[in-house]
Amino acid sequence: MPSPPTAEDLRATHRDIRSYIHRTPILTCQTLDRLTGAQLYFKCENFQKIGAFKMRGAAAATVLLSEIDRKKGLATHSSGNHAQAVARAAGLFDTQAYIVMPENAPSVKVAAVLEYGAEVIRCGNTPQDREATLEEVVARTGATFIHPFNDYGVIRGQATTAMELIEDAKAPFDILLAPVGGGGLLSGTALAARYFSPGTRVLAGEPYEVDDAYRSLRAGSIQYNETTNTIADGLRTPLGEKTFGIIREHVEAIIRVEEATIVRAMRLIWERMKIIIEPSCAVPLAAILTEPERFRDQRVGIILTGGNVDLERLPFGR
Amino acid sequence: MPSPPTAEDLRATHRDIRSYIHRTPILTCQTLDRLTGAQLYFKCENFQKIGAFKMRGAAAATVLLSEIDRKKGLATHSSGNHAQAVARAAGLFDTQAYIVMPENAPSVKVAAVLEYGAEVIRCGNTPQDREATLEEVVARTGATFIHPFNDYGVIRGQATTAMELIEDAKAPFDILLAPVGGGGLLSGTALAARYFSPGTRVLAGEPYEVDDAYRSLRAGSIQYNETTNTIADGLRTPLGEKTFGIIREHVEAIIRVEEATIVRAMRLIWERMKIIIEPSCAVPLAAILTEPERFRDQRVGIILTGGNVDLERLPFGR
Repeated sequence: MPSPPTAEDLRATHRDIRSYIHRTPILTCQTLDRLTGAQLYFKCENFQKIGAFKMRGAAAATVLLSEIDRKKGLATHSSGNHAQAVARAAGLFDTQAYIVMPENAPSVKVAAVLEYGAEVIRCGNTPQDREATLEEVVARTGATFIHPFNDYGVIRGQATTAMELIEDAKAPFDILLAPVGGGGLLSGTALAARYFSPGTRVLAGEPYEVDDAYRSLRAGSIQYNETTNTIADGLRTPLGEKTFGIIREHVEAIIRVEEATIVRAMRLIWERMKIIIEPSCAVPLAAILTEPERFRDQRVGIILTGGNVDLERLPFGR
Repeated sequence: MPSPPTAEDLRATHRDIRSYIHRTPILTCQTLDRLTGAQLYFKCENFQKIGAFKMRGAAAATVLLSEIDRKKGLATHSSGNHAQAVARAAGLFDTQAYIVMPENAPSVKVAAVLEYGAEVIRCGNTPQDREATLEEVVARTGATFIHPFNDYGVIRGQATTAMELIEDAKAPFDILLAPVGGGGLLSGTALAARYFSPGTRVLAGEPYEVDDAYRSLRAGSIQYNETTNTIADGLRTPLGEKTFGIIREHVEAIIRVEEATIVRAMRLIWERMKIIIEPSCAVPLAAILTEPERFRDQRVGIILTGGNVDLERLPFGR
């Protein structure tokens, strides 16, 4: 697809993937409203299939393939939620997934992908290893590479999160707030707001430690991270040119947050809302805690992106 | 109240406390359905105010007081969820709570009760200390003692959990399943099933380590625990004569579960459902894992009782 999705594209995608995803609930929390002085509506993609919004993008990209291509399978490289999403999408659409995962990927992640019936192809730990292995797999199988974010099909799927949030809300939001890593969710959110709730501003949260998107917006070109030293492991990726193009046009601001604030926000959501979210997912609330005046008295729709955490490695020390 | 609540009593209580409680959602989980071979419907009282169903009983007992008595305040002894529930109920009904808590109560629990505006009265660590201190407080203030479970008003409140579960279900349940400690929730659940879903059987889960309710049913009289060595700290209490009377008449069976099965069930719910539950709350799923054949192909309504855990002391070792 040569150009960003239209409103009709988003509607069509939502219709096409509806039976493959959960329409996740929206939760509220009086304690967090009191604490922030805002009205917060949490779209719970931690309850989505495979435990994250990534299911939407993988399903959307798969739906858009021709039947012949779909039969040849889906391929990607990822050790995170996207890997599970592509593996699950392949199962739902009765085809095969080929997931390239580095040797140092956590064994629990590899096991999850295998459990969904995917073939896992191990590779070295550098980006070059990963890409070379993926190319081999695609050449061997004819499977289609599903990019984790820099793909208009995937962006269409991620946009359905905000579409549902907007549809299910009793009144329009002042602000929609998402985290930003590669930008698939944020660009989908921005398009959904633009088309279906044009009065709503779109903001994002990003860890200081991987503030490439913040710097990209300021520089006017895609910037990269020198290090990736954040607990928000889903947000270490830089933007792609497709996500950057949408984000620079439709996102008002990116708020950077400290690591300690991410952990505080994560803990607040665990303790007060009694739901499990992963660290990346706490970044939007961390943004509100960082710049509270920007959100005071506002109706804020927050996308809770996922809940896949390792319970044996939690950041809640004494 | 001299005799167990009637159907009309339960309806009146639900009407009266509705604005003071959350109507909590019912969640399902395909993975757990596959794992157990049953259809499980989880009533999420971990999302209730103060994080547990105890809010219902405290509100119900408070509603039933005369205005004069209510003004004099509410008193109880507890270091668990009931303490928070009575404290919160006092706030909601614009009166004062007096909570007797032992010196060895966790400081986080004391802080939670204070946060709700209650007066905390510390006492020694024996049951005798607790009761003597409570008597002093009641004599000094004129406050009404709200028993944690052996009180028909409290039982009326706890019954509203199963009432909502029955009302919100699309079809009748084969089985309702709750944990049993003092028996307030279980006896309320049993009455709600008897009145509003008479074809539904009521079962309970109980840790082997504190299997007093199991033994009480077999003996035909209230039995006590020698030790309380269970992770399910909400279930250490023996039955009272009011809860025992209802349970022996209306509960089909109590299934005992091992500690390791409780932790396994808790972990399954955390990892697969992405919600936070406390160990006591995992006991019903542990009962299904313990006697799966009893639940196979059954529609089972499970009451998830609460989500108040100390995130710094979790049982998920490496």
